[in-house]
Amino acid sequence: MSDVKKASSALVSVFSKEGLAPLVQKLHDLGVTLYSTGGTQKFINDLGIPVVPVEDITSYPSILGGRVKTLHPKVFGGILNRQDHEGDVAEMKEYEIPQLDIVIVDLYPFEKTVASGASEQDIIEKIDIGGISLIRAAAKNFKDTLCVSSVDDYADVLQLMTDGEGTTTLADRKRFAAKSFGVSSHYDTAIFNYFNADHEIPALKVSEHKGKVLRYGENPHQRGFFFGDFDAMFDKLHGKELSYNNLLDVDAAVNLMNEFTGEAPTFAILKHNNACGFAQRDTMHTAYVDALAGDPTSAFGGVLIANNTIDKATAEEIHKLFCEVVIAPSYDDDALAILKGKKNRIILIQKETALPQTMMRTCLNGTLVQDRDAQTDSEDNLKHATHTKPTDNELEDLLFASKICKHTKSNTIVLCKNKQLCASGTGQTSRVDALRQAIEKATSFNFDLKGAVMASDAFFPFPDCVEIADKAGITAVIQPGGSIKDQLTIDYCNEHSLAMVMTGIRHFKH
Amino acid sequence: MSDVKKASSALVSVFSKEGLAPLVQKLHDLGVTLYSTGGTQKFINDLGIPVVPVEDITSYPSILGGRVKTLHPKVFGGILNRQDHEGDVAEMKEYEIPQLDIVIVDLYPFEKTVASGASEQDIIEKIDIGGISLIRAAAKNFKDTLCVSSVDDYADVLQLMTDGEGTTTLADRKRFAAKSFGVSSHYDTAIFNYFNADHEIPALKVSEHKGKVLRYGENPHQRGFFFGDFDAMFDKLHGKELSYNNLLDVDAAVNLMNEFTGEAPTFAILKHNNACGFAQRDTMHTAYVDALAGDPTSAFGGVLIANNTIDKATAEEIHKLFCEVVIAPSYDDDALAILKGKKNRIILIQKETALPQTMMRTCLNGTLVQDRDAQTDSEDNLKHATHTKPTDNELEDLLFASKICKHTKSNTIVLCKNKQLCASGTGQTSRVDALRQAIEKATSFNFDLKGAVMASDAFFPFPDCVEIADKAGITAVIQPGGSIKDQLTIDYCNEHSLAMVMTGIRHFKH
Repeated sequence: MSDVKKASSALVSVFSKEGLAPLVQKLHDLGVTLYSTGGTQKFINDLGIPVVPVEDITSYPSILGGRVKTLHPKVFGGILNRQDHEGDVAEMKEYEIPQLDIVIVDLYPFEKTVASGASEQDIIEKIDIGGISLIRAAAKNFKDTLCVSSVDDYADVLQLMTDGEGTTTLADRKRFAAKSFGVSSHYDTAIFNYFNADHEIPALKVSEHKGKVLRYGENPHQRGFFFGDFDAMFDKLHGKELSYNNLLDVDAAVNLMNEFTGEAPTFAILKHNNACGFAQRDTMHTAYVDALAGDPTSAFGGVLIANNTIDKATAEEIHKLFCEVVIAPSYDDDALAILKGKKNRIILIQKETALPQTMMRTCLNGTLVQDRDAQTDSEDNLKHATHTKPTDNELEDLLFASKICKHTKSNTIVLCKNKQLCASGTGQTSRVDALRQAIEKATSFNFDLKGAVMASDAFFPFPDCVEIADKAGITAVIQPGGSIKDQLTIDYCNEHSLAMVMTGIRHFKH
Repeated sequence: MSDVKKASSALVSVFSKEGLAPLVQKLHDLGVTLYSTGGTQKFINDLGIPVVPVEDITSYPSILGGRVKTLHPKVFGGILNRQDHEGDVAEMKEYEIPQLDIVIVDLYPFEKTVASGASEQDIIEKIDIGGISLIRAAAKNFKDTLCVSSVDDYADVLQLMTDGEGTTTLADRKRFAAKSFGVSSHYDTAIFNYFNADHEIPALKVSEHKGKVLRYGENPHQRGFFFGDFDAMFDKLHGKELSYNNLLDVDAAVNLMNEFTGEAPTFAILKHNNACGFAQRDTMHTAYVDALAGDPTSAFGGVLIANNTIDKATAEEIHKLFCEVVIAPSYDDDALAILKGKKNRIILIQKETALPQTMMRTCLNGTLVQDRDAQTDSEDNLKHATHTKPTDNELEDLLFASKICKHTKSNTIVLCKNKQLCASGTGQTSRVDALRQAIEKATSFNFDLKGAVMASDAFFPFPDCVEIADKAGITAVIQPGGSIKDQLTIDYCNEHSLAMVMTGIRHFKH
């Protein structure tokens, strides 16, 4: 088999020595000549393993404080020569270039240095030049050369060397080459994003290896993957693997509940990324019970999230419901024991609430990128548009409804009363339909809308919405404003003693 | 100002010579010594401009068929030395290393070679090693060195040299360094994606520079960008700039209408990414009129899409409506003249229907990736679940409704009759709500649902949906099936002579 190659030499130049010792020992035992420079050379020497300084090949010292060590034609010739190419073979002889069969590199830790808050000068010094050149050269020449491009692969390659007694197949080498370009592209993406932190060059650069293969995508016939650090955000205490749709719902749940961090006990139930139940109460138990009352039908199979500890009384109620996921910052032990009573129920502790500041999604033949909607309505940005002002209670409900509205799919109308979601119209093609849907739903679950409030994610194009709301008993309204017909809506409210506040902030979400 | 540097030397090693002549002429006129190799050296020589071969610096020839040309410590020393570092300055003297103030590189065209369908060997040979090393070294040392990393920047740097008479500021050099890591990361991302075409390494690698700054994101307080090639898909004939929300709607519209390519005249009206009007007819004019009849309220401000030429009669009807975007494969001249009658109305010709096969979106602290939903229901994947079989007419309507359903946000129920969308329930937290909403909406627009069909994006958990549908006059149903209670739904249909087909294919879309 011509594609199987036995290695007789290796160039080792690594930042991280962790796990390196058994690998270089194995290579030495297999009769592989080791070449190295600087710290790596010393490390191998100290193991009592013979190592040839790269300077012996190049007859050139390491210069400029180590900035230039391996960038020499004899080194790159040794890596890049084509062993089946007559001219290359002749030149290797003529210029006395030693063959380098394996290249083992671990790059300067650029990202870690940035993350550590180091100075610009320290960061710049950590831009690896020689190492990445070695990696790219060895990976390009995978037909002849094996490229090991990260400390993460030392163990793999040790196994490979052990199994093959120093031989590799073309498929092995190509696989490692693919990984190597993964490393180099990731490295330069990180550098680019560092240099371009102010986004002066509009660019979309993503490099993620922490990939998890999901059971499937939104549907069973679609493959699905998640590239993110789930474990950094959550401790998973119990239950089956999260699906693509679970992750989407958990994202919606976390975004929504982050608005209520530090507030009184608050509970939300979500389905298809929208809240179908939501309440804030003095205890988590009543918050859950009143959230569920918002729509016990939709709650079936839902994602549940709490902003405070789930206690035994709450867990007992939850346990009666079939739900896919429960999320909370913490659980009492006895509560947890109850929730674990269903084998598949996913139980998560949310540790971290920070989310990326920009968001992207595939659109047409490209990608849409935008800032996260980081604006939350508060008293500060409210403009009282009507003669009637909201009562204190209504004002609290308005801001409460506005937060839910912000996290419900457009067009949406959200109806709340006494810190409870009565109903919402979601994902509608017309605003008035969203309102009608919300009223009908609230009524079907026996909510009395007299004194309820209404939140709208965008302005009212016509006064029909406030009219319908008024007739349903709603007494206060929050909306961005900005329609050319705002005055008609204001007039209606004034004539019918509705209180309306305008936020100036639209909250479309699709 | 110590951060302003005057260049006295430049290393030029480029693949594309286009636009290079005026730049090297300018550098020569400014007294800059030019160094080069191979084809670039010959090109400069042929211009009658003096150029020093890099071999004169290195005393080392180009070897291995040009695979190793510039990878030499004297070259990289010339680029990487720190001019304010005593040791570096001494070594530059000691080793007779010439200072290289400017590095101009244009890489081998890897992506173009892949796109051309070249052989693996040709593609591998186009992996640039020396050039990218020069770029990275020069960019790292932006404190002293100016790095020009692409043919796209020749004109910029010519202007810079002209304006500054050969001088650059630190800010200039840093800006070019940022671009350079944009080039190197993009290049290696393309190589990685080539090596990893079979997705053996689960990775998410995106590198996009074709960025367009949008007016704003989903809402005015969010910045928005589109990274894609809009002009490859559309000719924009008229109207204002597309917004973030326009692009989302156009994406939804194109995905939906792609299902009806080559069919009889079909027209769709979308709002908030969902179809609110849809019809297929013998003429485009009647298709539009009957699409609009589905929901004339929602149509206001909508996105319109046709699968065939828009003629004058259709344009006259459309012109009565306020709509944001009109999309069609072509327009009759007189139709176009009418549509252009509104200044802001965006008019697009859809040229290209191909869309990426994988889709991504930000989720939690990472990104969800999945295959596009590429399955379309057809007679081939239908299982007749009931004694009553759909009539030919019903069968056509069922498949028609199923395609619309696939492109409507979950949970959804779509009601159609005679190739017309009667109504849909969209983005609902419960399936039965989606159905109720659809029936109510259809009734409010005076549709007679007797003989209509119902499509559901996912299975019915209970038989309540078919019961409600039956009572509304619906006679045939299409759904994936797969509930543990399917039999209850089948039993109901059998008892009430409803025809139901199961597809086995769920179409969740969020």
